[in-house]
Amino acid sequence: MFRLVPQDKAYRLLNHGPTVLVGSRSGDRANVMAAAWAMPLDFDTPKVAVVIDKATLTRQLVEASGHLVVSVPCVAQAALVRAVGSESGLQHPDKLVRCGVSHAPGPRTGAPLVSGCIAHLECRVLPATAHVAGPHDLILAEVIESSADDRVFSDGRWHFETAPDDLRSLHHVAGGFFYAIGQPVGD
Amino acid sequence: MFRLVPQDKAYRLLNHGPTVLVGSRSGDRANVMAAAWAMPLDFDTPKVAVVIDKATLTRQLVEASGHLVVSVPCVAQAALVRAVGSESGLQHPDKLVRCGVSHAPGPRTGAPLVSGCIAHLECRVLPATAHVAGPHDLILAEVIESSADDRVFSDGRWHFETAPDDLRSLHHVAGGFFYAIGQPVGD
Repeated sequence: MFRLVPQDKAYRLLNHGPTVLVGSRSGDRANVMAAAWAMPLDFDTPKVAVVIDKATLTRQLVEASGHLVVSVPCVAQAALVRAVGSESGLQHPDKLVRCGVSHAPGPRTGAPLVSGCIAHLECRVLPATAHVAGPHDLILAEVIESSADDRVFSDGRWHFETAPDDLRSLHHVAGGFFYAIGQPVGD
Repeated sequence: MFRLVPQDKAYRLLNHGPTVLVGSRSGDRANVMAAAWAMPLDFDTPKVAVVIDKATLTRQLVEASGHLVVSVPCVAQAALVRAVGSESGLQHPDKLVRCGVSHAPGPRTGAPLVSGCIAHLECRVLPATAHVAGPHDLILAEVIESSADDRVFSDGRWHFETAPDDLRSLHHVAGGFFYAIGQPVGD
């Protein structure tokens, strides 16, 4: 079951460096892309930083709407992550259908929350950061609300070791090849 | 053996989201801190983004020298990463000795390369980015030269699955608890 994550724990959804999906919507156009370059930027108020190329539909929709969703996909979705990471929403207006992406509108932003992900962070773009978005494609955003699948995230942290391996986060190496997050490291 | 990484593959050292160490030196003062908030920012010329709190010695040394080293520690170093992540170089001028950090000066920057890490990225701070360093503690830097341990990184990518588990990267969850990077994800 999905449960809201306290704002001061939201950074932990990204702290271990997973590859993410970025969902966006403006009017009746929606898109989802894959991004390996995303990280927390602050604790409370939680913020995130994510690199979104200016040649993408996602970038257009994020700039038009001022919102985005960062979602954490899992091993069961590896083929979907590869698909949305290689097809362009500019080239294929029906990308989400082509890629078999099932989604629902985020309650706070309307941007697509992809079914099967293990966490979602609904965000508003920090408007004063255009000076890094221009030269570096670096989008800074404030987390409005986040939620996570309580089979893998509870009591404010991930617990991958007690859940099915299919629910582990994905970490992109290169060329559509991923590692799953692995074993706990003891003392 | 450590080998140089081609500039256009340097981003791959951080692409899967490992927790890193940040090494810095100015004059005869050197420091190493742990950072979970680091990511690639560009391919070629490679760049990185890393959050470094303004209340740290590292931030002082990075701003004074204009250089930093991002290193990727491994499972064998978990205790060291916890130690340098919890002690302050401002409070303890002998922090590196206290934490048992063995290091050598980076050939391009002089900043400390911590022995036992599986990769190092020597970087110069992008000076035009003070506007994100101020409000967000976000340091953007260009990679000058990078190198990696060829037991785990070769042919331009990580190969954790063919090396000892102690050489896997660390991914910080919370409170000094890490996951190691895990298994390859098939189709």
